[in-house]
Amino acid sequence: MAELMNARGTRDFGPEDKILRQELCDTLREMFELYGFSPLETPILERYDVLAAKYDVGSEILKEIFKLSDQGDRDLCLRYDFTVPLARFVGMNKGLKMPFKRYAMGPVFRDGPLKIGRYREFWQCDCDIVGSSSMVADAQLLEMFQTFFSKIGLSIQIEINNRKILDGILEQLNVAKDKQTDMVLAIDKLKKIGLDGVEKELREKGMLNEQVDELLRILSIRGSNREKLEALRVVLKNPIGVAGINELEETISYMSEQSNVLFSVSLARGLAYYTGNIYEVFLQDQSVMSSSLGSGGRWDNMIANFIGSEQKVPAVGISFGLEPILDVLRKLEKVKGGKSLTQAFVVPIKTLKESVGITRQLRLAGIKTDIDLLGRNVGKNLEYASAMGIPFCVIVGPKELAQGIVTLRDMSSGDEKQLSIDEAIRSLLL
Amino acid sequence: MAELMNARGTRDFGPEDKILRQELCDTLREMFELYGFSPLETPILERYDVLAAKYDVGSEILKEIFKLSDQGDRDLCLRYDFTVPLARFVGMNKGLKMPFKRYAMGPVFRDGPLKIGRYREFWQCDCDIVGSSSMVADAQLLEMFQTFFSKIGLSIQIEINNRKILDGILEQLNVAKDKQTDMVLAIDKLKKIGLDGVEKELREKGMLNEQVDELLRILSIRGSNREKLEALRVVLKNPIGVAGINELEETISYMSEQSNVLFSVSLARGLAYYTGNIYEVFLQDQSVMSSSLGSGGRWDNMIANFIGSEQKVPAVGISFGLEPILDVLRKLEKVKGGKSLTQAFVVPIKTLKESVGITRQLRLAGIKTDIDLLGRNVGKNLEYASAMGIPFCVIVGPKELAQGIVTLRDMSSGDEKQLSIDEAIRSLLL
Repeated sequence: MAELMNARGTRDFGPEDKILRQELCDTLREMFELYGFSPLETPILERYDVLAAKYDVGSEILKEIFKLSDQGDRDLCLRYDFTVPLARFVGMNKGLKMPFKRYAMGPVFRDGPLKIGRYREFWQCDCDIVGSSSMVADAQLLEMFQTFFSKIGLSIQIEINNRKILDGILEQLNVAKDKQTDMVLAIDKLKKIGLDGVEKELREKGMLNEQVDELLRILSIRGSNREKLEALRVVLKNPIGVAGINELEETISYMSEQSNVLFSVSLARGLAYYTGNIYEVFLQDQSVMSSSLGSGGRWDNMIANFIGSEQKVPAVGISFGLEPILDVLRKLEKVKGGKSLTQAFVVPIKTLKESVGITRQLRLAGIKTDIDLLGRNVGKNLEYASAMGIPFCVIVGPKELAQGIVTLRDMSSGDEKQLSIDEAIRSLLL
Repeated sequence: MAELMNARGTRDFGPEDKILRQELCDTLREMFELYGFSPLETPILERYDVLAAKYDVGSEILKEIFKLSDQGDRDLCLRYDFTVPLARFVGMNKGLKMPFKRYAMGPVFRDGPLKIGRYREFWQCDCDIVGSSSMVADAQLLEMFQTFFSKIGLSIQIEINNRKILDGILEQLNVAKDKQTDMVLAIDKLKKIGLDGVEKELREKGMLNEQVDELLRILSIRGSNREKLEALRVVLKNPIGVAGINELEETISYMSEQSNVLFSVSLARGLAYYTGNIYEVFLQDQSVMSSSLGSGGRWDNMIANFIGSEQKVPAVGISFGLEPILDVLRKLEKVKGGKSLTQAFVVPIKTLKESVGITRQLRLAGIKTDIDLLGRNVGKNLEYASAMGIPFCVIVGPKELAQGIVTLRDMSSGDEKQLSIDEAIRSLLL
């Protein structure tokens, strides 16, 4: 007899959790479709050689890929994200109409070290636009952040930057190739460790004084987005840097004025495969929670590299952090937890067959209805309905039923009304 | 460079397929919730020792379980079905209110031989009631078959039987323990090979003449469900057989008269873990497709055995066959395929920024809207919208726009109307 337990880093989502998660995913899906995205489902099992082709041998990510094999001894693995499978799908479907706008939601798998909030099986919710270089595409995705978070009642701030601006700065400072990663990682920490912290780290890593000084000047630029970009134009003159500034300005020009977008020259989004705009979403009041609730960016090179295409296959996408969003909603008590979606619970008192029929009538009217299946007495049934958070009980006694009447009990107030079945249905539909 | 391909036995569902599958799953989910079921998500990764505990060492199923391990060298596997994870969840959550009614939809994994229509990753859609022995529970599930298939426009017939009736017959015929499996498997083939075929197979397997004769008498009983059950009562007198007949009659008594239920004494549902009623759903017109579209039954012993409970944990459940249902819907042309869910495609003519604003207005009104992201000319954009099956285009030219007017083009008829933006929105909302 094995001890009953979950695999490490995996979780069960019982009804109360799953109802919430499902609600959030419904809201996301509705928005994805409102913005012209279609669903794509790629399998959880992938060929290892295909999935691994994107990564350098020995890379950290390869170590975190769950590997397995099938009866034919083929090397397989579990999907690590939705990006590589998307690239594979695009590569295998040459006739796909461009732009290809798809969303995907579901579990991905990483065999990494376990920390609080880190799991080996967790959901990602992505949408990507493949085949368009237009900054309108970027702006639409940023608008989706705005739309979604306002829909669920969270005030957010979207930080944006452009990889080309960072590249331009590195070029202008004449940073040696082998120091670029160090410098980007240090810049990315500005929010966490402040200007002094970044300065210290850069000096420790052996940056030259004039490089550090010029970089700090750039990182210290203050003002509105427009002011910051204009100030940056004055100091950043190389073509790649200017291209980045132009892309960012154009993107912002396509957004509504209500958008809460903050240009942040220090945002680097780690060492991911982004090539243009990059985004990260935070709660406006970061004292409630400082983790990122969503992120994304433009990744124009990956697909062509991956599928070996001579033609450019530009792409831009965003990702919603289901777990941190749920955490915030719980923390701000913006979710009403429920163990059940059921609206009415039918309690038979020696009227089982008739109660089955009444249950059928309620469901035909579209009311989510359940009925006692344990032959419990009225008290026990009311207790059960109350514990399950079911708002109404329909009590069906033999005398009342003879007159075509049932008792509708409001479980929160305890009020009871004697009603005909039709009246009870109408009342439940209100 | 790895060749781009899917892992064997897995498939991509591009937008056209996934939209359909999603629609079907939405309809299922709506019905599950209408009938008082809650969602439960258990992980795809399970501990091998836990999952395997249900099966006999050396069983066929164990050979088909995908095994893998994590960094800590723990033996893991991919879920094989939703039943064992449900039993584990029940065992691990002692405070669960009974009855526990849950549904689950998602991929399961079997490393089996590949045939047409057989996959290594495929979806199951299950709902189960745990904790109730009442035949009302069975009847509700049968009603759900009826409700769902009538909703999607398929006329079905539900074949039902009861394992206790089969057990009673075996007992009455004095079939030796080691011959019971052979006999059940032969009986199960009645529909496929007919009475003569079953007779031949039983004799080949060494059944005694009087056993074969009595069994054939039972299998030959004809008439309405009531007539068949009454005739069976006359020949089947042992307690287990009588219990089976009673359960079946009680179940039918809780169903609406419209239910198309057919008592079939030969239905055995293979060698699964069922203990009471068993069901299998077929198309009424089996010339269109003869495969089963759904199935289920009562499994009162598995959970208690699995979790080592002294108390009985009765359960009953049904499963919907997503793949065969989709096959039938396609074959009967009851699905309207679509590459996209988008309702309106905005075509800017030198009005990009304004068109972005109009797109935003359409979406605010709840219209699923997309906009040109490639800067294509009108002709190319109309071609794209038409290829994607988007029903309307909103063409935004500079002159018209100056008057607050856009052109709404019906893509199927080619009709164009000049409308104000509000009028266009109202027209699209019709």
